Amino acid sequence: MQRYKLLIAYDGFGYSGWQVQPGMKTIQGELEKCFHRLTGEAIKVHGSGRTDQGVHAAGQTAHVDLPGYLPERKIIQAANAILPPDIRILKIRRASDSFHARRDASAKEYRYFIWNGPVLPPLLCRYRIHIRQPLDISGMQAAAAHLTGRHDFAAFTANPRRTVESTVRNLSRLTVQRRGREVVIAARSDGFLYRMVRSLAGFLIRVGMGDLPPPEAKKILNQKQRTAVVPTALPQGLFLWRVYYG
Amino acid sequence: MQRYKLLIAYDGFGYSGWQVQPGMKTIQGELEKCFHRLTGEAIKVHGSGRTDQGVHAAGQTAHVDLPGYLPERKIIQAANAILPPDIRILKIRRASDSFHARRDASAKEYRYFIWNGPVLPPLLCRYRIHIRQPLDISGMQAAAAHLTGRHDFAAFTANPRRTVESTVRNLSRLTVQRRGREVVIAARSDGFLYRMVRSLAGFLIRVGMGDLPPPEAKKILNQKQRTAVVPTALPQGLFLWRVYYG
Repeated sequence: MQRYKLLIAYDGFGYSGWQVQPGMKTIQGELEKCFHRLTGEAIKVHGSGRTDQGVHAAGQTAHVDLPGYLPERKIIQAANAILPPDIRILKIRRASDSFHARRDASAKEYRYFIWNGPVLPPLLCRYRIHIRQPLDISGMQAAAAHLTGRHDFAAFTANPRRTVESTVRNLSRLTVQRRGREVVIAARSDGFLYRMVRSLAGFLIRVGMGDLPPPEAKKILNQKQRTAVVPTALPQGLFLWRVYYG
Repeated sequence: MQRYKLLIAYDGFGYSGWQVQPGMKTIQGELEKCFHRLTGEAIKVHGSGRTDQGVHAAGQTAHVDLPGYLPERKIIQAANAILPPDIRILKIRRASDSFHARRDASAKEYRYFIWNGPVLPPLLCRYRIHIRQPLDISGMQAAAAHLTGRHDFAAFTANPRRTVESTVRNLSRLTVQRRGREVVIAARSDGFLYRMVRSLAGFLIRVGMGDLPPPEAKKILNQKQRTAVVPTALPQGLFLWRVYYG
């Protein structure tokens, strides 16, 4: 068997998220079906992590063990010919047997895209959320500065019943930028809690709409529990942007 | 009644084209349903022309008569709140009673988009056709130059049984441009024949792939009838780009 590292992009719109679930159309499921068809064997695709229903990826990573050696170009062409067109393998390269897409990931970046203008262009309707009212970007940036760094993000995860050892994470980057009518929130961390990026985006959007002052970020962090003040932003604006290794 | 001119964009992927057809989901049908809900009256939406199933629009135009006067901004907001998100009214302005979206149009521009690289990005899979092999752009440009101008385009229309008074058209612009991995064919004319743009694109793509030499354009024009040499390119790459008036 030869281990390969994959770089994958997908439109999450028609899928029940990354992870295989019986009876559901999932990204991992489509990839495993594809490699089964290519090799005739049951192949497991190990992603860097899950993405929720409706969330997209510009740079998801995974590893996979394939029987025998095939040139990388051939695998990409054959796999993309089988996969549905809204899932694409962008790159593939041989990896050592010890490489593990999830365990070896050192950080991830997500980007959340908001269309902030009067009319959301129809070709973007599955990939942006639409906020008509002009957002206060400097307010959002001030709130983001409070959230950047090592904190207990218990107030910014969606499901308090999920037990995790610790809700402390190092959010090494949280930025807000306007590019014309688009507002992009970028979040980078060595580990994200469940629905953390969508909760951060939901909170920053409320700040941008003038519902909450930027220093509220500190207060909410200190409460260390989720409240109704922090909404979970819709999945369609979210992209897994890049997974870092080493 | 007040007449309005509309500028409309849509993702044609999920629709059976522009024109209302019983039992089918169409762009015109969705617009008429929307104005019916807004006004309580049966409202006819007159487009500048039809687009085929799966063809998109960045700048379709139409006119519509609405009872009483409503501020344009209000109509846009109310209509876009009712319309499906893959159809958007971009602009609306009052027009004189004599304005007619189809009869007053002086020219139209269509653009055909080709992704010419190894992997078609998943978010573009409904809006581009994918050609992996590098296209010979200067060959395509040379062929396009032969086709530009006033000619009998009988060889570049799909349905020879459609009777039209004349198949002579003035193709005032036919250009081919590469922009990174995209190749864009732009066609402008005061009138297009049935499936003419997709036939021109199909022919130019064959030239770009080296199947036909550019001067073949002249020979095919002179034959004045459709042959298997000219394929009809897939609808998903085609956008009605702009309708000109006056």
